[in-house]
Amino acid sequence: MTITLYELVGKDETRPFSPHCWKVAMALAHKGLDWTSVKTPFTGITGIEGAGKTVPVIRDGERIVSDSFQIALYLEKTHPDRPALFGGPGGEAMARFVESWTQTQLNAVLGMAAVMDIHDCLSPTDQTYFRKSREARFGATLSEAKERGVEKLPELRGRLQPLRAMFAHQPYIGGQTPLFADYIVFGSLQWIRIVSPDPLLERDDPVLDWFDRCLDLHDGLGRKTPAAA
Amino acid sequence: MTITLYELVGKDETRPFSPHCWKVAMALAHKGLDWTSVKTPFTGITGIEGAGKTVPVIRDGERIVSDSFQIALYLEKTHPDRPALFGGPGGEAMARFVESWTQTQLNAVLGMAAVMDIHDCLSPTDQTYFRKSREARFGATLSEAKERGVEKLPELRGRLQPLRAMFAHQPYIGGQTPLFADYIVFGSLQWIRIVSPDPLLERDDPVLDWFDRCLDLHDGLGRKTPAAA
Repeated sequence: MTITLYELVGKDETRPFSPHCWKVAMALAHKGLDWTSVKTPFTGITGIEGAGKTVPVIRDGERIVSDSFQIALYLEKTHPDRPALFGGPGGEAMARFVESWTQTQLNAVLGMAAVMDIHDCLSPTDQTYFRKSREARFGATLSEAKERGVEKLPELRGRLQPLRAMFAHQPYIGGQTPLFADYIVFGSLQWIRIVSPDPLLERDDPVLDWFDRCLDLHDGLGRKTPAAA
Repeated sequence: MTITLYELVGKDETRPFSPHCWKVAMALAHKGLDWTSVKTPFTGITGIEGAGKTVPVIRDGERIVSDSFQIALYLEKTHPDRPALFGGPGGEAMARFVESWTQTQLNAVLGMAAVMDIHDCLSPTDQTYFRKSREARFGATLSEAKERGVEKLPELRGRLQPLRAMFAHQPYIGGQTPLFADYIVFGSLQWIRIVSPDPLLERDDPVLDWFDRCLDLHDGLGRKTPAAA
């Protein structure tokens, strides 16, 4: 049975960009599972499969699962014979730390710095929704939010220092090979790669080497969506 | 056979304070192993058991192991029947991420902010060594280094946000129970608790609740060394 993945797109349906949907796409590929993608605009999310208010959502036969972490747990549980996404109970617990780190230290800044780029990717209907909901969330206009985010980008580059230090020991957060924790961080950099033409990192940043390794995984799945130009 | 742990002390030998030695003490207690502590001043480290230039070092029979992470790996391998320190290969890999995060995001600042407190804990001979080596490392006097560190404490409190977000899912970095990754972060807060009378965190910070849980572990091992007054 092929899994259905509902993933976020803008006006170009060939360019899914949501960090959380990318985590799931990479997790599905990691497990060697087939899936079909249902391209979903922001204003098409509510009520997908009755699952609520966010993407990703997957349907696997009769089973509906939403939330990227829950989906990864579901895939690990239903396909224990396929390559591991967590590598045991310690890896499952610490992937939550990696998720919390990514959300609070990276995504909070990236979501502001790239807010105009994201807006510009969307269909007109989605743009109206996005502007209203984000201006309410940030308590600022989109361009003010962008300015705030861009100001924090140098600090964000510093916050990636744990990855750089870790590379002295191993090439992936998962060790010698990637695990779901890698896809959590990958999702954020892939999001920005797809929506924004501005380079986020310095060309010689070892984090970019890791990101390139991730883009090569699973027959270059991540690379199949070209970078924003 | 009782394990010997060489751990750093200042002029009061009952108050071991090194973050890295605390990781190992907690790991030994986690495994339910007996150990005897050899109290070691900074100027007594060189040449311990021929192992090199840092503590912790353990001797287990004929085996000498140095470096806190290597010691934890050694304990996990030699005592697979005791409670797990890593919880599988994923947990082992991600503990490296937690270590890199702790070193770069926390310890780098804490080591400067508390540098005078650490200095003041030491014997006169160690104080001379410490001042010279730290002034060379920081390229600044100890009081300048302290000033730089203290300035960054508000930012450091922000860098703990990943832990606060994670607590929505689980009480420990290791999940429902602690793993070595918890002891990595615990070691840093315990270090500051023992050397510095200045409160590092706000009283209502959820990170303090987690730290209290860690202090209670293993019959209150961490609490047996009272906080600096």
